[in-house]
Amino acid sequence: MRARVAVTLKTGILDPQGKAIEGALHGLGIEDVVSVRQGKIFDIELAVADRAAAEDSLRQACEKLLANMVIENYRIEIA
Amino acid sequence: MRARVAVTLKTGILDPQGKAIEGALHGLGIEDVVSVRQGKIFDIELAVADRAAAEDSLRQACEKLLANMVIENYRIEIA
Repeated sequence: MRARVAVTLKTGILDPQGKAIEGALHGLGIEDVVSVRQGKIFDIELAVADRAAAEDSLRQACEKLLANMVIENYRIEIA
Repeated sequence: MRARVAVTLKTGILDPQGKAIEGALHGLGIEDVVSVRQGKIFDIELAVADRAAAEDSLRQACEKLLANMVIENYRIEIA
């Protein structure tokens, strides 16, 4: 079973990396860009048959390792 | 207009960071995980009215800065 986990910064958390990218895009002449926020994707393959078990494992993975729950949100999409 | 750009490694490109995460998840007792590949997300806000202009700016942003076209693919989703 395949899944994609997206980890993004919570609203209100500063994102200096996103700000730097925004500045660089303006420097390259792409002026339409108003804001950029960066996050992470994890494409995960699981050896489980049912969706519920996959979701349980992925939730554990996010909360123990992939996301910093103080400053980040995660979203799980199972294919 | 809001968009999300996902940048992921092309198939066949080694992902040592993903491998390390996979090992760490096994170490945490999450044994169902078979493989992990890491990528990046950019949540971008654009000051354009029409979809075609947004897509054009985002494509430029990806090809000039956000993705390394030799080893990465990108996908644009306009909300």
